[in-house]
Amino acid sequence: MSDHVYKVTELTGSSKKGIEDAVHNAINRASRTLRNLRWFEVTETRGHIEDGKIAHWQVTIKIGFTLDE
Amino acid sequence: MSDHVYKVTELTGSSKKGIEDAVHNAINRASRTLRNLRWFEVTETRGHIEDGKIAHWQVTIKIGFTLDE
Amino acid sequence: MSDHVYKVTELTGSSKKGIEDAVHNAINRASRTLRNLRWFEVTETRGHIEDGKIAHWQVTIKIGFTLDE
Amino acid sequence: MSDHVYKVTELTGSSKKGIEDAVHNAINRASRTLRNLRWFEVTETRGHIEDGKIAHWQVTIKIGFTLDE
Amino acid sequence: MSDHVYKVTELTGSSKKGIEDAVHNAINRASRTLRNLRWFEVTETRGHIEDGKIAHWQVTIKIGFTLDE
Amino acid sequence: MSDHVYKVTELTGSSKKGIEDAVHNAINRASRTLRNLRWFEVTETRGHIEDGKIAHWQVTIKIGFTLDE
Amino acid sequence: MSDHVYKVTELTGSSKKGIEDAVHNAINRASRTLRNLRWFEVTETRGHIEDGKIAHWQVTIKIGFTLDE
Amino acid sequence: MSDHVYKVTELTGSSKKGIEDAVHNAINRASRTLRNLRWFEVTETRGHIEDGKIAHWQVTIKIGFTLDE
Amino acid sequence: MSDHVYKVTELTGSSKKGIEDAVHNAINRASRTLRNLRWFEVTETRGHIEDGKIAHWQVTIKIGFTLDE
Amino acid sequence: MSDHVYKVTELTGSSKKGIEDAVHNAINRASRTLRNLRWFEVTETRGHIEDGKIAHWQVTIKIGFTLDE
Amino acid sequence: MSDHVYKVTELTGSSKKGIEDAVHNAINRASRTLRNLRWFEVTETRGHIEDGKIAHWQVTIKIGFTLDE
Amino acid sequence: MSDHVYKVTELTGSSKKGIEDAVHNAINRASRTLRNLRWFEVTETRGHIEDGKIAHWQVTIKIGFTLDE
Repeated sequence: MSDHVYKVTELTGSSKKGIEDAVHNAINRASRTLRNLRWFEVTETRGHIEDGKIAHWQVTIKIGFTLDE
Repeated sequence: MSDHVYKVTELTGSSKKGIEDAVHNAINRASRTLRNLRWFEVTETRGHIEDGKIAHWQVTIKIGFTLDE
Repeated sequence: MSDHVYKVTELTGSSKKGIEDAVHNAINRASRTLRNLRWFEVTETRGHIEDGKIAHWQVTIKIGFTLDE
Repeated sequence: MSDHVYKVTELTGSSKKGIEDAVHNAINRASRTLRNLRWFEVTETRGHIEDGKIAHWQVTIKIGFTLDE
Repeated sequence: MSDHVYKVTELTGSSKKGIEDAVHNAINRASRTLRNLRWFEVTETRGHIEDGKIAHWQVTIKIGFTLDE
Repeated sequence: MSDHVYKVTELTGSSKKGIEDAVHNAINRASRTLRNLRWFEVTETRGHIEDGKIAHWQVTIKIGFTLDE
Repeated sequence: MSDHVYKVTELTGSSKKGIEDAVHNAINRASRTLRNLRWFEVTETRGHIEDGKIAHWQVTIKIGFTLDE
Repeated sequence: MSDHVYKVTELTGSSKKGIEDAVHNAINRASRTLRNLRWFEVTETRGHIEDGKIAHWQVTIKIGFTLDE
Repeated sequence: MSDHVYKVTELTGSSKKGIEDAVHNAINRASRTLRNLRWFEVTETRGHIEDGKIAHWQVTIKIGFTLDE
Repeated sequence: MSDHVYKVTELTGSSKKGIEDAVHNAINRASRTLRNLRWFEVTETRGHIEDGKIAHWQVTIKIGFTLDE
Repeated sequence: MSDHVYKVTELTGSSKKGIEDAVHNAINRASRTLRNLRWFEVTETRGHIEDGKIAHWQVTIKIGFTLDE
Repeated sequence: MSDHVYKVTELTGSSKKGIEDAVHNAINRASRTLRNLRWFEVTETRGHIEDGKIAHWQVTIKIGFTLDE
């Protein structure tokens, strides 16, 4: 297992509900085309405001997944 | 729209409930005196501890808003 | 009060539920052996993915506590 | 002169033309309400893309100005 | 619109003319294979020198684009 | 107390004497127009040199103050 | 040559032997599917520990490669 | 001497007088329980404000000390 | 396993041989007093020079270990 | 070629015209006393403001050049 | 004046007395061989500890000076 | 010894063999023209790739040396 190579890809998930849901959305989308997702790291937490309220959250994550050998 | 100028202001919201609520509190307060809030970015997530428990969260955000032309 | 000395320790809490719960777990564990916890700061938010879903969140915090005089 | 106090404010200027024009726009807007602007520093250079082309540049700067004594 | 997921890719454009042209080149190249480009952020500005003059600029950007749902 | 909102403003104080005096000058100036100053953080320590000697120190701080509810 | 566009991809290589071997493994894996690799930069050096010893090193690199024109 | 292992610990010292005194207080406190302190590095300089004046400085340092062999 | 709490400690290992050996020395020393070491991350690579040659390397790492439940 | 040693020097160029011209000025000045300049990297973009307009840009770069063998 | 080129050099001054004296020592030494020193910026504040007390402070600064035209 | 002033210079060493050898090459080259080298710090680890293999490593270091009094 120790000689695996991982690729790191960066995604921004958005959600009206909150930070964790935005991360879930990004990972759900990634899992539709990528296998063997292993870990993620939050790199940026932002959001859009409309009429003085949070319209949606935008959370950027790096996702690591194992490349086939 | 492309020649707007935005001002960025920095606020710390606090909340007993959690991170998102602290951000909401900061944006609610800002919207009482500033119009045309557009986006925010979380720059620091901290909190105070009392009796071994989280007493309140303190989340610092930058808020961007459009300046009148 | 102004001449207190604080020690800063770094912990990673994990949780299946989310970010705030991971922070709670880290602070609960710290409060079992350390007295006079005062504040925390989130320094890293990561997580593990299994079968395309978030298996658990891992949130690293710095905790400050007062040293006895 | 050595005991002046400066305030630092953060603005994002945008422009269809380019980076320097976006900075000019931000400073022009600031000079309508603030006197004694002294310096600026570029902290972020971003932009929006439409139809595969740069629609406008968005450059964030910090501006320092002397406070009246 | 709030539940879109964006992918962030990193490109380095180069140009003999200058910074903005290097960014244009990178975005032009990206738009040949990627649809729905939304934004970019400059992360590094470098260049090569030959015979004591700037031979070409190399500007690295992150580009965000919407993933199909 | 846990639901206060703080505003963070950035000032540069200068002084011929040294770092702490430059910070004092910035806070003194801020306290003439802002109430409820709570904390500060030093973000940059610079200075000007004339005739091979330090002419004055320039220390940039962020100051947090409570917004009225 | 000056108007090439490079894509930057991020990989984590692992190795029981050490840092350089982990970088080699990542580049070897990348070269199986990508042509025209040009440069790399180490962005993170980590590792796993088992039974009090280093089980394997994990080195993250950014790799730049020329895109076809 | 070249194979020593050092432990790095992080402390925040506070003082009504100034930055250097806050560092002294932190090191004095550390030296009551730790032997073989070797070096320190200032990582953060903050303070509390009361009635528009600096109530006390809070300086965070990392301290390195030799572990017994 | 998902609710473990990890403590992160910072050590500097030194070695005449090189970077990896300095990391090994730090981890070997840590494993004499700490159980359940899990991972490390290199945060700083420095060294001392004597007579124009590297006398020893000094590599600082953060080590994470599981706290007993 | 692989065993060359490069020296990195830091210069700030200024210009009334803009960012690229400030970089040109710095490199032109460097090439009067240094041979074998190879690359540069922009590390800071600032400027001075007079009468509400940009008086001159100040761009800091690192320049790498080959040392004679 | 706007087309000057500045060189930036990095020095570490040390002092038994404190931070400002260490900066003074570095600037005094620089002014013995360099003319037209203009500004400095503190980039690191460290120190050595002997017998549980601060033996000397070590402050690293960048110094900018005008190059002759 | 406490009032020494150190100059910090930045070099990039390259090597076909690996990271430590690239650092050795930079220090060897520096020691041909500079006396009293004291310490170094690795600030960047990069490399060039040819034909899918590492052609040479390029490691940038800061070197500190004592200035004559």
